[in-house]
Amino acid sequence: MRIGIDAMGGDSAPVEEIRGAFSARTLLDEDDRIVLVGREDVLREHLASCDGWEDFIEIHPAADVIGMDESPVEALRSKPDSSIAVMAEMHKRGELDACLSAGNTGAFVAAAQMRLRRLRGVHRPGIAIITPTHAGPVALCDVGANVQCRPQHLHQYALMASVYLDALCGVDKARVGLLSIGEEDAKGTDLVKRARDLMREDRDIELVGNVEGRDLFRGVCDVMVCDGFVGNVVLKLMEGMAVGVIHGLIGELVASMPDHEGRIVQAAEGIASKYDFNEYGGAPLLGIAGICIICHGASDQRGIMNAVRVAREFAEQKVNDRIIELLNKARRTAHA
Amino acid sequence: MRIGIDAMGGDSAPVEEIRGAFSARTLLDEDDRIVLVGREDVLREHLASCDGWEDFIEIHPAADVIGMDESPVEALRSKPDSSIAVMAEMHKRGELDACLSAGNTGAFVAAAQMRLRRLRGVHRPGIAIITPTHAGPVALCDVGANVQCRPQHLHQYALMASVYLDALCGVDKARVGLLSIGEEDAKGTDLVKRARDLMREDRDIELVGNVEGRDLFRGVCDVMVCDGFVGNVVLKLMEGMAVGVIHGLIGELVASMPDHEGRIVQAAEGIASKYDFNEYGGAPLLGIAGICIICHGASDQRGIMNAVRVAREFAEQKVNDRIIELLNKARRTAHA
Repeated sequence: MRIGIDAMGGDSAPVEEIRGAFSARTLLDEDDRIVLVGREDVLREHLASCDGWEDFIEIHPAADVIGMDESPVEALRSKPDSSIAVMAEMHKRGELDACLSAGNTGAFVAAAQMRLRRLRGVHRPGIAIITPTHAGPVALCDVGANVQCRPQHLHQYALMASVYLDALCGVDKARVGLLSIGEEDAKGTDLVKRARDLMREDRDIELVGNVEGRDLFRGVCDVMVCDGFVGNVVLKLMEGMAVGVIHGLIGELVASMPDHEGRIVQAAEGIASKYDFNEYGGAPLLGIAGICIICHGASDQRGIMNAVRVAREFAEQKVNDRIIELLNKARRTAHA
Repeated sequence: MRIGIDAMGGDSAPVEEIRGAFSARTLLDEDDRIVLVGREDVLREHLASCDGWEDFIEIHPAADVIGMDESPVEALRSKPDSSIAVMAEMHKRGELDACLSAGNTGAFVAAAQMRLRRLRGVHRPGIAIITPTHAGPVALCDVGANVQCRPQHLHQYALMASVYLDALCGVDKARVGLLSIGEEDAKGTDLVKRARDLMREDRDIELVGNVEGRDLFRGVCDVMVCDGFVGNVVLKLMEGMAVGVIHGLIGELVASMPDHEGRIVQAAEGIASKYDFNEYGGAPLLGIAGICIICHGASDQRGIMNAVRVAREFAEQKVNDRIIELLNKARRTAHA
């Protein structure tokens, strides 16, 4: 397969993108290609010192870059030659089987929606992230594509994220929780209540009911759905808190046992990696007729490599075919 | 002062409520009284073995209890003799100077709103919690009183939470952040954007701008405002995550250094206490003409004791007077 990487988007682009491509080489089949999309002169300069890059990497030129702070839709319109726009266009034309970017998330989501079709029957795409908790992986959707959610969006996020979690982690019949502010039915917003009614009627969803923020770490559900505003706040809170708690703990432990600093730091790194975005690599935009993997802006070599892994698994496990099948079934049931 | 405690509300009521009252005794002046509101027979039975309780504790009977799962407004209507309803009524009549409950939060908030007046000019009360991060305390408001926020509600939460943080932690001129999904102005919901416009015009608010979930641990702002749905998700996520991360770390460390289990657990407890709701005790409902401190349902003796401490500091620092003064000033400026 041909996997496009937006080589200009991330905070450390193109260095980490190129290093990530090399790290990902072991994941590739012989015919697979990484296509770096970006400024050709910059990329050639960086690749000059990399022996054998031509064996598995291609360069596709894109003259422009969308900055992290730019307004997504305006930037896409004014920069048709940006790496994100060019990459999405290539994916649409079938020149790529998947693409990934650590650049402006909003612009990548908008490019995917504008250039690629949605899967048949999908109302709105959503970003799903798999958080590896001590009680097992939990897929959280949406974490930032859609801040104006309607009940049917949350309903479909539950279906799509369940398929994705099964494909990547082998979690069959995912238990779905609706993120709210109390377990009781009466708690929450109108959105939550109406989404719950929709999901209760759907036999393909094993609905746990309302869940709370703390349930993310309690093995209560396998998939958690929420609107993109709440999901994005949750995602970034987890990132900040893991760092905060772990650093605090290392400090207290080292002060108490200065002779064991090395082992303390080592153990802490083991835990930190569980909450490290570079470990999971990237989050797919579910519901798009394509494979678009969104990486953290601060992704390093590992983050890019693991995003390539996610893209390959997404393709091998035919996640999109399975989503289409499930949505077709839901439609047939509704019409029966 | 006379501090009412809903003796029937928490998960371990009335045991932890009574133990908390005894722990709080050292915080009280000679004339101060704790008034336990609840079923008299139950309370007398529990107090029978406690020497000298009559010296600082009074019992005020309330025949009914509102359960954690009951719908707040319906329960208040159908149970006028519930401990929460009776306690709020006593506070209204001036028989209490402050009250606290670890029971049904929604019912306590509703009772406060229905029985006590709002402070003059306040649109909607909000619950403020102070989270002790490594970068200093951050007041988060609202964490669950108001899930249908309007921009002017968030604006007032910023003002009220700043006063509260200053009163309790001595943080003068709090830097205010608006919880959103990106630092750029274009990011976020309509609510966030309109609230930002309101706050920008208010010279009494030192607005940092949009902040993200991770900024809670980065010393970026002292006060963070959001709607009660998002705030409640954040609050419970922090609670669950602290437990999850710390347990995971203890497990890895003990496996690596089995001889040092005691010191590892001790250091971990030091950190855990930073995120332990029992340490901060309770969260005030800001904007109410009274002092209503909301405790976690699982509050233990320490939690109740620290909630008494919060109630006393709230009164001593004249938080409500300072809020009224600030809102009056805002009104005068708006009319000038």
